[in-house]
Amino acid sequence: MTDMLSPDELHARLQAIGDERYHIHHPFHRLLHGGKLTKPQVQAWALNRYYYQASIPRKDATVLARLPTAELRREWRRRLVDHDGDGTAPGGIERWLALTDGLGLDRDYVVSLEGLLPGTRFAVDAYVAFVRDRTLLEAVASSLTEMFSPNIISQRVAGMLKNYDFVSETTLAYFTPRLTQAPVDVAFALDYVKRVPRTRAEQEQVLGALRFKCDLLWAQLDALHFAYVEPGLPPPGAFRP
Amino acid sequence: MTDMLSPDELHARLQAIGDERYHIHHPFHRLLHGGKLTKPQVQAWALNRYYYQASIPRKDATVLARLPTAELRREWRRRLVDHDGDGTAPGGIERWLALTDGLGLDRDYVVSLEGLLPGTRFAVDAYVAFVRDRTLLEAVASSLTEMFSPNIISQRVAGMLKNYDFVSETTLAYFTPRLTQAPVDVAFALDYVKRVPRTRAEQEQVLGALRFKCDLLWAQLDALHFAYVEPGLPPPGAFRP
Repeated sequence: MTDMLSPDELHARLQAIGDERYHIHHPFHRLLHGGKLTKPQVQAWALNRYYYQASIPRKDATVLARLPTAELRREWRRRLVDHDGDGTAPGGIERWLALTDGLGLDRDYVVSLEGLLPGTRFAVDAYVAFVRDRTLLEAVASSLTEMFSPNIISQRVAGMLKNYDFVSETTLAYFTPRLTQAPVDVAFALDYVKRVPRTRAEQEQVLGALRFKCDLLWAQLDALHFAYVEPGLPPPGAFRP
Repeated sequence: MTDMLSPDELHARLQAIGDERYHIHHPFHRLLHGGKLTKPQVQAWALNRYYYQASIPRKDATVLARLPTAELRREWRRRLVDHDGDGTAPGGIERWLALTDGLGLDRDYVVSLEGLLPGTRFAVDAYVAFVRDRTLLEAVASSLTEMFSPNIISQRVAGMLKNYDFVSETTLAYFTPRLTQAPVDVAFALDYVKRVPRTRAEQEQVLGALRFKCDLLWAQLDALHFAYVEPGLPPPGAFRP
């Protein structure tokens, strides 16, 4: 390893990872926001993505359990509130179920995970295992795909509203709060990964964690594309349109 | 194993475990609330107990990461708020530090854990490992010592205020909110351990988890008693009055 990267250099390299690897570039995403999918294909996407959404609080509580101070834990706790809600305002999981409802999927079937693609399960579970088993620095850094999420959300919402008559602003309500929540999360996590590393090796871990996270988002769309677009071979037991 | 216990029988057996094993019966507690300890001995108690307090949110976040639904996680999340605070109102850890401050201990020294007894560390770490490695039912059940805490808190606060001129209602402010927080936590956890078990073996796990928890609270007072009362042999590196 060579010299430490400056905070700005590190930031630029994180951005470059997103430019190359974020799933906004995946063919499935292009089909999704471009209006090229059938309703059953959009259902398959929402059904599988539910498992990712529902696992985020498990992931965040796992990080929380490793954070050493009340101050850091309070910061991270906000993510739990965003996704689990507070008992009055719905959280992200509940809002995602409004989407699967709106797409005509049976809620019990979605929540049961019976129709989930194994590829989705493996990728999502790998995320929870990553934040449990890697360094805390890598766990925090793996959240940094949120740097790129306002962009993909804007594309997705605009594209889907324009191109599909079976979605509405109500069913896509999941995404609106994320446009303001994600940047708050990113501000903390970016500051953390710029501040904490003491060696170039640790900075490389930060970059590696973001690559890993991009890979697992990408892998989820690979699994969907293979099963429901091309060649279109859902495995035994998976959701069938 | 024989028949399932009724909810009331289970409740009675939990209560009986507390009657026998809760650390309200430990000689060190009697000395503490009876005004028989010197200020340095009370300092040693507060210093060691800090590690327990500071580890509770780690413990609760570990449980949270295992809870399967947003509803259960929201319920458990309240414990994190109680102990870590919300950034404006101080949480339990901060209020405990007000106690160690009031006892004249240097805050950096307390937080550094340098003077901690190894016996405290092992007992507390065993608690976090227990809720990570055992069944979720046992993890929830291990919180049930809170059934008995309003009692010990009342004794402790009244006894300490009466008997020590170096404590005040301000320094003991940690305990006041616990008198209302603990019963809310207990109501949920008791309902859970009455509702979830499907076999007598699982009910026995519930009882075993509470015994384990009583043991680890007791062991912390054993370590204090040995090091600072009788024979009074603090190990190398531990806090010295």
